[in-house]
Amino acid sequence: MNHSSIIFSGPNALKCELVPYLIELGIDRVFMILDKILLEIHADTLYPLMDLLPKEHILLIEAGEEYKHLDQCQKVWRFFTESKVNRNDVVVNVGGGVLTDLGGFCASIYKRGISTINVPTTLMGMVDAAIGGKTAVDYLGVKNLLGAFHLPIAVCGDSSFLSTLTQKELLSGFGEIVKHSLLVGGDMWQRVIQFDPLYSDSEEWQYFVDLSMKYKEAVVKEDLYDNGLRKCLNLGHTIGHALESYFINSKSSFGTDRDLVSHGEAVIAGLIAELYMSNQLLGFPSDILHQLIYLAKENYAPLLFTCKEYDPLLKLMKQDKKNISKAVSYVGMRSLGEPVLLEVDDEELKNGLDFYREMLC
Amino acid sequence: MNHSSIIFSGPNALKCELVPYLIELGIDRVFMILDKILLEIHADTLYPLMDLLPKEHILLIEAGEEYKHLDQCQKVWRFFTESKVNRNDVVVNVGGGVLTDLGGFCASIYKRGISTINVPTTLMGMVDAAIGGKTAVDYLGVKNLLGAFHLPIAVCGDSSFLSTLTQKELLSGFGEIVKHSLLVGGDMWQRVIQFDPLYSDSEEWQYFVDLSMKYKEAVVKEDLYDNGLRKCLNLGHTIGHALESYFINSKSSFGTDRDLVSHGEAVIAGLIAELYMSNQLLGFPSDILHQLIYLAKENYAPLLFTCKEYDPLLKLMKQDKKNISKAVSYVGMRSLGEPVLLEVDDEELKNGLDFYREMLC
Ligand SMILES: NC(=O)c1ccc[n+]([C@@H]2O[C@H](COP(=O)([O-])OP(=O)(O)OC[C@H]3O[C@@H](n4cnc5c(N)ncnc54)[C@H](O)[C@@H]3O)[C@@H](O)[C@H]2O)c1
Ligand SMILES: NC(=O)c1ccc[n+]([C@@H]2O[C@H](COP(=O)([O-])OP(=O)(O)OC[C@H]3O[C@@H](n4cnc5c(N)ncnc54)[C@H](O)[C@@H]3O)[C@@H](O)[C@H]2O)c1
Repeated sequence: MNHSSIIFSGPNALKCELVPYLIELGIDRVFMILDKILLEIHADTLYPLMDLLPKEHILLIEAGEEYKHLDQCQKVWRFFTESKVNRNDVVVNVGGGVLTDLGGFCASIYKRGISTINVPTTLMGMVDAAIGGKTAVDYLGVKNLLGAFHLPIAVCGDSSFLSTLTQKELLSGFGEIVKHSLLVGGDMWQRVIQFDPLYSDSEEWQYFVDLSMKYKEAVVKEDLYDNGLRKCLNLGHTIGHALESYFINSKSSFGTDRDLVSHGEAVIAGLIAELYMSNQLLGFPSDILHQLIYLAKENYAPLLFTCKEYDPLLKLMKQDKKNISKAVSYVGMRSLGEPVLLEVDDEELKNGLDFYREMLC
Repeated sequence: MNHSSIIFSGPNALKCELVPYLIELGIDRVFMILDKILLEIHADTLYPLMDLLPKEHILLIEAGEEYKHLDQCQKVWRFFTESKVNRNDVVVNVGGGVLTDLGGFCASIYKRGISTINVPTTLMGMVDAAIGGKTAVDYLGVKNLLGAFHLPIAVCGDSSFLSTLTQKELLSGFGEIVKHSLLVGGDMWQRVIQFDPLYSDSEEWQYFVDLSMKYKEAVVKEDLYDNGLRKCLNLGHTIGHALESYFINSKSSFGTDRDLVSHGEAVIAGLIAELYMSNQLLGFPSDILHQLIYLAKENYAPLLFTCKEYDPLLKLMKQDKKNISKAVSYVGMRSLGEPVLLEVDDEELKNGLDFYREMLC
């Protein structure tokens, strides 16, 4: 089976690459699910696509995590049914990670699978969510409880959409770019440590969007179902995920608003703690670890927590669905570009958390 | 990827094969969704399985087509969540085609896929629905609108369950057995034309259950996603499906209760009409066609319709999702065991329908 997606990437990829591709496919086969908000803020970028399709082929919906649930899916399925979408058609999902996750999920189980194309419009979408075929919606208050593997036939990363994102959203997506740069190494790492995420324009972002998309797509091609190589994309996420969930659900003793911790910020903290562990266990180079710490200090506020909070954090790491035994499996690194899967115990995880707090707080 | 299921088959397969297999897997990983009604009518057969599992691992639900929808799924997903089912667990679906379709679907998208084992308890389930990984629920009044390909790791065909089925249900499942016998040929065909579906006991059915399961499983192993070989399982279904839908939605001009046409009955009619077409187009042997007609006359009431009803029937055949062009694709046969895919036009389909009416009505 072919486990790959076509990657369109460039500051005008939507107009110059995606639109001709859709014309080639045959426009009467193409349907679109679009985040409502984009119609107001990116009408110009979207015009070549919107203009192509009959109005009845376009569904406008609300996006954002609070809409990522089964009721919203029912809207999409009703649209598919009313528009007589069938198994030979293609659904283009245009929006952030919520929209591509939800649109992808809806398409994946409609008539046992309609093809999709993702057009991510957030940085997180471009470098992570829209690639790789993991689709899902939240359910019963659990994130991504219902989902499917459904690889898009194509993904279009057009950095023109980035201009309207908040700093917080850019920094969140940048967390995943930093992770990819560690996994890719070489020039990408050199450029990431010199990059200024808050004072760069779309064209400057495009380099990272491009490399991140192609890197993730190449990993997924080898291991769509997340049984091996793909696990390396969890770098920084064992601790990062735990911090993210913990902060979202707890009140800070420091008075800062923990609710506002973004995914990418938590990943940056996770990367530091986990790479310290790799430094201790696998000899991951200290100078790179310190470059990462410098990057974090320049761009991110530290996540504040005390050692009294280690136990609930460890509990969260063990609930992580990736761990079947009691030891926690995590992605270590020998050096830039050299991830390895290993298991660690509580002591080692606590050392990682200690190190993060010592360096950043 | 491994596209196959373990097949347990035998009059005591549940007790003698499935239960030891589950013990080997580890009982704390096993959950069960059971058609409520079976607890009353098959307590004895189910006892070895029920006795194995903690009560909290068992969900009793209503089955039957009217329950095959998203609300019923939500019951299942709530049960999974409350029981903390995770990606390493296994869900055993026990019931007819509705239950295995629904349980399989629920499991397929829960946490992007929990393994399933099917224990079909109707003949239609054993010889068709429980095998091959097509799962689905009805939605917005459309049959199987939401679904997924999710192959069970094992299927257990235990004919002990058949004793409580009505004649109508046995005859419906028998329709699919007849189809498989045509596709398999040889001894299976010889035995099917001598078989009496209304006066045979469980042990006598087991032969056909066994061969049908293994045959369908072998086909699916080659072509899970229904892009090639698997299409041969549509033998008799191009016309059969159209007749089934048409009869369910129309009032008969003959005063008989068309609502009561079962899937298998419609397939038998479809087989006769389609094999006549094969006889004309591909030289399918007349004597086998006449053996089939004899079998139909012995066991099934004819489906009554007039030539005025051909047009709506043809319309239904063209809506069939398997047809992308205007000609209707159907499964023809050169001889027993030799299916071929081809396209036919309206005239040929009408000839098939004429022949059925001439022979049966
Ligand atoms: N499938 C995967 O592999 C994967 C990977 C990472 C994240 N995710 C999922 O992605 C989601 C997060 O995605 P996200 O960070 O893109 O958030 P998001 O999709 O919630 O988008 C954030 C907000 O930005 C708006 N928006 C979209 N494009 C915009 C633009 N160009 N300018 C201004 N506003 C815009 C949206 O309407 C929304 O309100 C989560 O649900 C997460 O689970 C999935
Ligand atoms: N997935 C597939 O490949 C596939 C193939 C064929 C049919 N199907 C689906 O299967 C469904 C039909 O399945 P079915 O014919 O088994 O009907 P069913 O599942 O509706 O069962 C019929 C009735 O029999 C009851 N029942 C179950 N086991 C019994 C037993 N041992 N004794 C007495 N009663 C029993 C059920 O409670 C139900 O009321 C349809 O929804 C159809 O779409 C799926």
